[in-house]
Amino acid sequence: MSSIQHIGVFTSGGDAPGMNACIRAVVRTSIFHNLRVSGIMRGYEGMINGEIESLGVKSVANIIQRGGTVLKTARSDEFITPEGRKKAYEQLKKAGIDALVAIGGDGTFTGADIFQSEFDIPVIGIPGTIDNDLYGTDFTIGYDTAINTVIDAVDKVRDTAESHDRLFFVEVMGRDSGLIALRSGIGVGAEAILLPEVDTDLEQMYERLEKGRKDKSSKIIIVAEGDNEGGAFPIAQKVKERFPHYDTKVAVLGHIQRGGKPTCADRVLASRLGFAAVEALMDGKRGVMAGVMNHEVVFTPFERAIKHISELDPAWVRMVGILST
Amino acid sequence: MSSIQHIGVFTSGGDAPGMNACIRAVVRTSIFHNLRVSGIMRGYEGMINGEIESLGVKSVANIIQRGGTVLKTARSDEFITPEGRKKAYEQLKKAGIDALVAIGGDGTFTGADIFQSEFDIPVIGIPGTIDNDLYGTDFTIGYDTAINTVIDAVDKVRDTAESHDRLFFVEVMGRDSGLIALRSGIGVGAEAILLPEVDTDLEQMYERLEKGRKDKSSKIIIVAEGDNEGGAFPIAQKVKERFPHYDTKVAVLGHIQRGGKPTCADRVLASRLGFAAVEALMDGKRGVMAGVMNHEVVFTPFERAIKHISELDPAWVRMVGILST
Amino acid sequence: MSSIQHIGVFTSGGDAPGMNACIRAVVRTSIFHNLRVSGIMRGYEGMINGEIESLGVKSVANIIQRGGTVLKTARSDEFITPEGRKKAYEQLKKAGIDALVAIGGDGTFTGADIFQSEFDIPVIGIPGTIDNDLYGTDFTIGYDTAINTVIDAVDKVRDTAESHDRLFFVEVMGRDSGLIALRSGIGVGAEAILLPEVDTDLEQMYERLEKGRKDKSSKIIIVAEGDNEGGAFPIAQKVKERFPHYDTKVAVLGHIQRGGKPTCADRVLASRLGFAAVEALMDGKRGVMAGVMNHEVVFTPFERAIKHISELDPAWVRMVGILST
Amino acid sequence: MSSIQHIGVFTSGGDAPGMNACIRAVVRTSIFHNLRVSGIMRGYEGMINGEIESLGVKSVANIIQRGGTVLKTARSDEFITPEGRKKAYEQLKKAGIDALVAIGGDGTFTGADIFQSEFDIPVIGIPGTIDNDLYGTDFTIGYDTAINTVIDAVDKVRDTAESHDRLFFVEVMGRDSGLIALRSGIGVGAEAILLPEVDTDLEQMYERLEKGRKDKSSKIIIVAEGDNEGGAFPIAQKVKERFPHYDTKVAVLGHIQRGGKPTCADRVLASRLGFAAVEALMDGKRGVMAGVMNHEVVFTPFERAIKHISELDPAWVRMVGILST
Repeated sequence: MSSIQHIGVFTSGGDAPGMNACIRAVVRTSIFHNLRVSGIMRGYEGMINGEIESLGVKSVANIIQRGGTVLKTARSDEFITPEGRKKAYEQLKKAGIDALVAIGGDGTFTGADIFQSEFDIPVIGIPGTIDNDLYGTDFTIGYDTAINTVIDAVDKVRDTAESHDRLFFVEVMGRDSGLIALRSGIGVGAEAILLPEVDTDLEQMYERLEKGRKDKSSKIIIVAEGDNEGGAFPIAQKVKERFPHYDTKVAVLGHIQRGGKPTCADRVLASRLGFAAVEALMDGKRGVMAGVMNHEVVFTPFERAIKHISELDPAWVRMVGILST
Repeated sequence: MSSIQHIGVFTSGGDAPGMNACIRAVVRTSIFHNLRVSGIMRGYEGMINGEIESLGVKSVANIIQRGGTVLKTARSDEFITPEGRKKAYEQLKKAGIDALVAIGGDGTFTGADIFQSEFDIPVIGIPGTIDNDLYGTDFTIGYDTAINTVIDAVDKVRDTAESHDRLFFVEVMGRDSGLIALRSGIGVGAEAILLPEVDTDLEQMYERLEKGRKDKSSKIIIVAEGDNEGGAFPIAQKVKERFPHYDTKVAVLGHIQRGGKPTCADRVLASRLGFAAVEALMDGKRGVMAGVMNHEVVFTPFERAIKHISELDPAWVRMVGILST
Repeated sequence: MSSIQHIGVFTSGGDAPGMNACIRAVVRTSIFHNLRVSGIMRGYEGMINGEIESLGVKSVANIIQRGGTVLKTARSDEFITPEGRKKAYEQLKKAGIDALVAIGGDGTFTGADIFQSEFDIPVIGIPGTIDNDLYGTDFTIGYDTAINTVIDAVDKVRDTAESHDRLFFVEVMGRDSGLIALRSGIGVGAEAILLPEVDTDLEQMYERLEKGRKDKSSKIIIVAEGDNEGGAFPIAQKVKERFPHYDTKVAVLGHIQRGGKPTCADRVLASRLGFAAVEALMDGKRGVMAGVMNHEVVFTPFERAIKHISELDPAWVRMVGILST
Repeated sequence: MSSIQHIGVFTSGGDAPGMNACIRAVVRTSIFHNLRVSGIMRGYEGMINGEIESLGVKSVANIIQRGGTVLKTARSDEFITPEGRKKAYEQLKKAGIDALVAIGGDGTFTGADIFQSEFDIPVIGIPGTIDNDLYGTDFTIGYDTAINTVIDAVDKVRDTAESHDRLFFVEVMGRDSGLIALRSGIGVGAEAILLPEVDTDLEQMYERLEKGRKDKSSKIIIVAEGDNEGGAFPIAQKVKERFPHYDTKVAVLGHIQRGGKPTCADRVLASRLGFAAVEALMDGKRGVMAGVMNHEVVFTPFERAIKHISELDPAWVRMVGILST
């Protein structure tokens, strides 16, 4: 039998589509199991300030399809300090919260890990970030929506590129990880995909561009913002210098990648993980992130989950090379 | 070394979003490997009639994002007969085609299996169907798009249901399989999901409806067309009789579920499988369906792939019960 | 100077996308002019029951993009009776409301017209209905969204129709008015558009179908539900009997046409009319519907606005005939 | 009776969603009237080079819903010279084309006006540009799609802005015209809309930002790229200096605004104008742009149509001020 009585749930770090579906699952599962559940606003910042609200089924009605997070999110400098975490703990005690579900990314889990080691409040993490850069889950909540937002935008760019026989460099999010670029690049049939994980071979790209000129009227190159050439603008500049006769343009997709209605996959993933996190807390788990690997829910210690993935599967890289030739 | 020189690709059975992305991958991979590649129009029907066209990179430019199939599809009664298959074989020989990639569902693979056992033409299958009802792949091409089409439609229905405090029965595709209903039902936060695999417990549904009345103003029940109650209309009728004071409506989503731009996941899956099928033919594989299980490409004999999945994971059923309570 | 001090706003009849944008404009404009503003829930039903809530800028934050109506809507049998209207009036007096903005269609305005003739509460109406069937405005709020929802759905249907060389009968809303069918039919390039306003000439349609067979592989016929043949199913049945070799299917779009995020045109129209209605009440107007004709805001007496439009511009009918040939 | 026998149609300048729907209408209307019709590729550039293709019903099947232009578009330096235009004329004569439909913007019509004054080839223009900056039509083809693309993107930005309590400056297209900014700004409920036509009053904007802080958690300011402050980045910089405690971000929407499936309004407008242009040529009209004003098709001489609109209706400016307060 679980000794947990009152769960606090919060979102932290960058927002991601599907966070609301996850909050809803945490709330409904808690209520099903006769637990109290409260929302902590603005992540650790709101925890420190005691911005805590009791949640019921009505609080989460009609939010499963909404982007962003109804609990809002923030970054907190104060929580990095022992004093800040102490204050947060006291606020939780005051509210009667005895367990936490933390939805966010690596920064969120780093904080959670320290906090749960310092205080007697178990924490389960849920990966909510569009970057898909955490160990312990095949996909993070928000990633599927983000790559679909990218391909919708690039499909629009392709319309105009095709009409003008243009070469477009489209910059997508991913400072340290090329996973958004990789899948969206395959999804749009990009002529090349430039990633932080792979040193960009400009000569090879030039060759491919020249070779493909006769077959395809438009060309799209997807560039992760963390590419070693420094993003879409500097690369486009180099191409312009090399091939002045090309009609070259740049599109930086920016913050639209963070918003929008979550896809079905993100809603389902968020629902599963929210559900699993509550039951895991009841089972006595703590200090772990819930994820889905090979379609099964698994739990990974925070310290392991936050290690960034820095390698790409060579089989994927080979396939991308062949499909875009 | 491969003895394959000329691949024929076709789509057959019901069309599914992502088929074009798959055709594109087959064509581009074939060309990369210096193989000839031709498109066979209208599935087995076109094979029998010799509707075969040589394909190049240009043929598949700008189709990755398109729903439907540029090779068209049809059902063929003639191919069921030995005479029909003989004709088909002769047309392939005449065109110089010595290997096939068959994109479709169980009917397609049943035909392909007989054909490749009768003639010296290796065939690799690729699962292209919105139903996700094949063994040997976690997802079929088109399924992810279909469930996203469903949730987009139900999100719209929810707007009007919410405004009127209505109960909506939404019927989705799935004569034998409840997989579209299951994931889309979770995705929309349905109050209940009625599936062919589970005997509908109307009394339990009635209870849940009554219980939820005070908390939620709208209610959505997802009904797979193959549900044992006979679809959305008969169930809605029963509910109207039981609860005449409810404002009950039915929406049958129908053929919109087959169309639309493929999602990123479907484009990526289709690209991977098209790519893998060509390389598998070159490696001497035949009589198998290419699929992705636990993120790896795997090959399953046709006779095994076409066995319908008829059980749902009880863990999912339990979760749905809890989340919709 | 205006003697109005406290405006009540409500939505009534069928919901329409853009109603929330309109409510927002009513609230913000009232507040700008230092008027109090309250929302009356569930139309006349909530008015009678005194379901009235004070609204502020926060109440309408982040709703401009939402389908449905946050004030909910209902049909009221009681308001048809003098006793019901008396109760409604007393509730308004009790709440201190001295003017009304009624967002809805002909039923809403019929009620509003009687009410404002019986009591000293001025009412301005705003046309919120997807049907676009009111005099005194070129477009009603929700119509533009509805026709875009239809063309999105039919674009999906076209994908599958095209893949199978199918003929699809798509039924759209419009019991008395063919305006949804007309514009969406032009928008999808329909082979024929069947409308309540025009007697369906089946022989002409048969001819056109036969003539077009060689040029177009798919065919879409848009049928308004109020067509004199009785909707899509009976017509499809007749065509099946006449042309048994056609692959004929039916899609009934249903309630998805009422929901969804409003288009930009609907949000702008809703904002203009909400704004104009408040200023018109301040100027002493009453018993009129605000509309936009030839891009200018105009006011039309309720009794005139609710006359259904029953004729189509013959120039449009001729154009449809030529474009679909 | 018309002496026209063979119409050439082309798109020129920036592409705009709906151009394909317009091409389709030109082709189908021509064929209905037993005229030949050819497509001239890449605007004036292709005309000079004789890139001319005969078009039939099949050529325009299934394009009504596609963004971009199947005839492609380009800018032509050579057409500015008398020699270039002479070559173009000779190519048309060679192809037997005796009338032109020119789909584009002011540059297109400037060229068309000179051309039709120099040679005996009548030209009718059709306004295809997302900027909506031509006299003689209430809306240009592509404008409605562009503003809907903007609001879809900003709705996504709003999700993340709302989650973080951020202030976003969103830059939209419009070097000389604020019409995209104006309507999309109303559509998203922007806190301010900065336009080329109105000198930006930064102090007023600062006041409004401060005033609104307590009521709204997110703030969106729409900036036309031609705003006198120089676009979104410089303004955001000034705001950051003035209010360092704001969390201020910039999103530049860029070329996604040119692409995408046309909205229903754009498809209908494009169909009407393509249809009207052909019949106008048959009626002997030339040197005019077809447009729709107050819902009627009208024709405006090129020299008048290309005068940019540089004033905004003060009533709209006042309304925007009140709604965003």
